[in-house]
Amino acid sequence: MHYVLSLSGGMDSATVLAKLLQDGHSVDCFYFAYGSKHEEFECEMASRLIGYYFMNYRVATFSFIRLPFIKKEFRSDLLKGQGEIPEGYFEDESMKDTVVPCRNMIFLSILAGLAESRKAEGIALGIHQGDHAIYPDCRPLFFDQMAAVIQTATDGKVGTIAPFLHTDKHGILAWGLEHKVPYHLTRTCYKDQPLSCGRCGSCVERLEAFSSMGIKDPITYEEREDGI
Amino acid sequence: MHYVLSLSGGMDSATVLAKLLQDGHSVDCFYFAYGSKHEEFECEMASRLIGYYFMNYRVATFSFIRLPFIKKEFRSDLLKGQGEIPEGYFEDESMKDTVVPCRNMIFLSILAGLAESRKAEGIALGIHQGDHAIYPDCRPLFFDQMAAVIQTATDGKVGTIAPFLHTDKHGILAWGLEHKVPYHLTRTCYKDQPLSCGRCGSCVERLEAFSSMGIKDPITYEEREDGI
Repeated sequence: MHYVLSLSGGMDSATVLAKLLQDGHSVDCFYFAYGSKHEEFECEMASRLIGYYFMNYRVATFSFIRLPFIKKEFRSDLLKGQGEIPEGYFEDESMKDTVVPCRNMIFLSILAGLAESRKAEGIALGIHQGDHAIYPDCRPLFFDQMAAVIQTATDGKVGTIAPFLHTDKHGILAWGLEHKVPYHLTRTCYKDQPLSCGRCGSCVERLEAFSSMGIKDPITYEEREDGI
Repeated sequence: MHYVLSLSGGMDSATVLAKLLQDGHSVDCFYFAYGSKHEEFECEMASRLIGYYFMNYRVATFSFIRLPFIKKEFRSDLLKGQGEIPEGYFEDESMKDTVVPCRNMIFLSILAGLAESRKAEGIALGIHQGDHAIYPDCRPLFFDQMAAVIQTATDGKVGTIAPFLHTDKHGILAWGLEHKVPYHLTRTCYKDQPLSCGRCGSCVERLEAFSSMGIKDPITYEEREDGI
């Protein structure tokens, strides 16, 4: 089968790509550049990850989709030039300001059009049990409704699959480690700095996932006086 | 109330804008530039129409949203550099190749994010009874599903309204003529030429709507040896 996938540079989409390739599918990957603070570093990781898969697996195409209007027109602390990224946990109230309104809906709509144009059977989703309730467009109801509207809008030509739908963050990482996903070529931090901060909600969750497996995260974090 | 609206340069969105302003709402308008053949001419008309409303009614903002990846990545004869625009009727088989996959889903997703960022109550839609069955994302089911997913993705903050949902093309035009919508500042033709062709499905439908009202369309069509 032939799928399209949004490759964000993070662990979830990297693992979904590995799973799809392992299952024998061909995958067209897209990086959405929308003006997030961490875009420059995230995008470098997505490109390096794709380079790894180009060399080691069947051909997967990789394209950039630029959405510069989001940074200009949307309100979110995740975007360049807007508020600071908070430190703490995803569940913290302060993290709500990092929501980019309707980002997943926009990405999925574009992926649906791309899938139809490329005659792909569907969109592969990185959703899992551990997705965050603070993001309305990360909840199961959203994905169910979106899958239905994509079917309608494409006259049934484009479907959706979510290989890790019933798995939590821990389970995805366990699968990925077992299948040698190159997590050293992923990046999770929300901040606009080369080294991951280790303190934002996104970093904390990643570190806890590795810690729960008893494995050291292979990426480098910034050193801080108070230690991490 | 405060709404966002996709202003395409055509008659339907011009009439919806007039209706919203007449009903006392404030409206943020957006022109989506995605690489259609008629973009240059359509966009000029959208800008002139907005100029008219800026001068004559309450302030409505107008912004451009550029989606250049659609021309590059999507397949449709409506796009620059791809197949020819057919002449005839919307219902003709040949018109199917002018569908831009998931275009309305992409526009609505972006409008939902814009509405939430600007704290607008909703998205105003130009859908009506005469919309075309060849476009899967012009059908009532699509709009019903999309309204539901927009509610979910915005935690109920962004709704949708469709002032002409139960009206046909003829009825919209009748309302617009009665309320002096400046149809000389609209453009409908799909072709990449300054004067409207009068022969594509889009022109034919427009001409028939005016003809059924016994009124001459105020825009200029190209002259052809065989007459129109």
